[in-house]
Amino acid sequence: MTAPSPSAAGLRFLRPDIAAMRGYTPGEQVADCIKLNTNECAWPPSQRVFAALHGIGEAQLRKYPDPRARHLREVAAATYGVRADQVLAGNGSDDCLTILYRSLLGPGDRAACPWPTYGLYDDLAAIQGVAIEHVDWAKDWQLPSVLPRLGAKLVLLANPNNPSGTVVPVAELRRLADALDGILVVDEAYVDFCPGGSILPHLDAHPNLIVLRTFSKSYSLAGARLGLLFAAAPLVDAFMKVKDSYNVNVLTQLAGTAALEDQDHHRDLLRRTLAERARLERELARLGWTWPPSGANFLLCEVGSKAGDIYRGLKDRGLLVRWWDRPGLDSKLRITVGTPEQTDLLLKHLQELA
Amino acid sequence: MTAPSPSAAGLRFLRPDIAAMRGYTPGEQVADCIKLNTNECAWPPSQRVFAALHGIGEAQLRKYPDPRARHLREVAAATYGVRADQVLAGNGSDDCLTILYRSLLGPGDRAACPWPTYGLYDDLAAIQGVAIEHVDWAKDWQLPSVLPRLGAKLVLLANPNNPSGTVVPVAELRRLADALDGILVVDEAYVDFCPGGSILPHLDAHPNLIVLRTFSKSYSLAGARLGLLFAAAPLVDAFMKVKDSYNVNVLTQLAGTAALEDQDHHRDLLRRTLAERARLERELARLGWTWPPSGANFLLCEVGSKAGDIYRGLKDRGLLVRWWDRPGLDSKLRITVGTPEQTDLLLKHLQELA
Repeated sequence: MTAPSPSAAGLRFLRPDIAAMRGYTPGEQVADCIKLNTNECAWPPSQRVFAALHGIGEAQLRKYPDPRARHLREVAAATYGVRADQVLAGNGSDDCLTILYRSLLGPGDRAACPWPTYGLYDDLAAIQGVAIEHVDWAKDWQLPSVLPRLGAKLVLLANPNNPSGTVVPVAELRRLADALDGILVVDEAYVDFCPGGSILPHLDAHPNLIVLRTFSKSYSLAGARLGLLFAAAPLVDAFMKVKDSYNVNVLTQLAGTAALEDQDHHRDLLRRTLAERARLERELARLGWTWPPSGANFLLCEVGSKAGDIYRGLKDRGLLVRWWDRPGLDSKLRITVGTPEQTDLLLKHLQELA
Repeated sequence: MTAPSPSAAGLRFLRPDIAAMRGYTPGEQVADCIKLNTNECAWPPSQRVFAALHGIGEAQLRKYPDPRARHLREVAAATYGVRADQVLAGNGSDDCLTILYRSLLGPGDRAACPWPTYGLYDDLAAIQGVAIEHVDWAKDWQLPSVLPRLGAKLVLLANPNNPSGTVVPVAELRRLADALDGILVVDEAYVDFCPGGSILPHLDAHPNLIVLRTFSKSYSLAGARLGLLFAAAPLVDAFMKVKDSYNVNVLTQLAGTAALEDQDHHRDLLRRTLAERARLERELARLGWTWPPSGANFLLCEVGSKAGDIYRGLKDRGLLVRWWDRPGLDSKLRITVGTPEQTDLLLKHLQELA
């Protein structure tokens, strides 16, 4: 053993569980690659977003932003048919998740989620020092019936799910919320790609329901970091105490408001994505690949033992898709819906590789 | 007692300590007021910041930002004379503080700080579920000698201090770091207004030292939310696991980089602030007011029993300063250095009120 470097002497003050944890690995960000690996929107955001950023004034940058993002929340409330006091804005929906964990989970509390799903749910549990129970999805990505009986204070459910793209019907989620002695978080990052799939219209009926949305996918604003949390007003009030005081900067507040105010553009992004998803499905079917029905802007393709080789082959050709080197997922590729040109290129490479 | 509203039914799932806490109160943000209450810079940020925001491309908003903010950290490292692996970027230095608390403090651990200081140190301890010990500053805002003997794993020290503006000499801080069996955080939010006051040049000598900087004050970018954390590389590595994956959005990364690259403008902001602080001091001395020597862009004025009345009178006249209705501070007003025109107006009102 070599002596630790002097600069590592401070490591002994870390929490032992933090020192031991691996940390969340974001999808690869490789320059000059076509990125079909992190489910960004294939087309750009509204021109109104750029106009808002170009109009930014000196005083807006110089002064602190509105700590409660009132105007953004009012526009969001009008867009989504809720009240502004039922909305909290976050620095991405990851920030909303962090606020939830810190507000709800103390020593001895537990979280639970169907598995596999968004890996960050696990990392946040580790950081909060609480256990999270994984329950395998039932056959064909159906809702596991055991969830209400786990004694978990917080149940997290991505709908559509990531990485499968599958959708649990709203009626089943409502029954789960009613049956649960705890909080149900429905993470609707991808729900705009699944018409009629949102539980948000039923928010008032379930005081233990929290719904998350993001601007990273259907609004094409992953770079700006904006998420929304919807919950009963008393819960939102409590979460306001836990979030960083000025968690959403003024630029992102302006960008998000402008994006919400251009619903024509938003509908256009959805229309294009769904059309290209349909075409991608037709073409991949010719390769003999299968995938569970997707309500998202990606497909989780069953590829078989060559999945890792195809992932690497595509990467060598400048095209990134998502592959996980772990049991249960290592035969699959998750492919984001791209532009028609990107789909053409993907199909061309796959014909050589698959 | 009235029955709780149905929408409040989810509150029972909150952590009891979170339900009971009051939450941090940011300084008032009142429209159409002159704000000398939250220590923003009186002059606008660099024009290069606006140029960077005007040049933002579609792909930058559409895609996720660099999760590790590499380019910003490289420019910061070159600016501050450290290595990029000793820098972590945060969504404001409040985010850096949150990352620190979550990484370092588990059940049973304790923090400590001289008091009074930045109130957020307390709120973050409450959210993390740990105790924080307050130690009164020694006479004339000198460093309390007891700090190394408290058994605290994390000692927080704002230098210059807020709300006093007072400065602890670097040599004393270095002795404290050496004496401490824990981490010393020196929060240098205001240090640019105090030439020679930074401990950052000594980072390599103290593996348990963490230095925080913000762009909200001397770079006039409070609206953009950007803070930097400087520490030994192994600690920065660990903190990367705990921060939100994409905690700094692309707009703020670009704005911060542009601000760092215009050091001429930065020096100009400092020169103007120090000149106007000197003038404010000359004028307030004529009122018979006193304040401890300030190394920041504000003065904590000893005003006497009329402090609250003067605060309210100024607010009625459209001018906000900071006043705390609590023992030890209720005879004082904290006044941010403004533009010459704002100082003129402040003095005019004070002649009627003081």
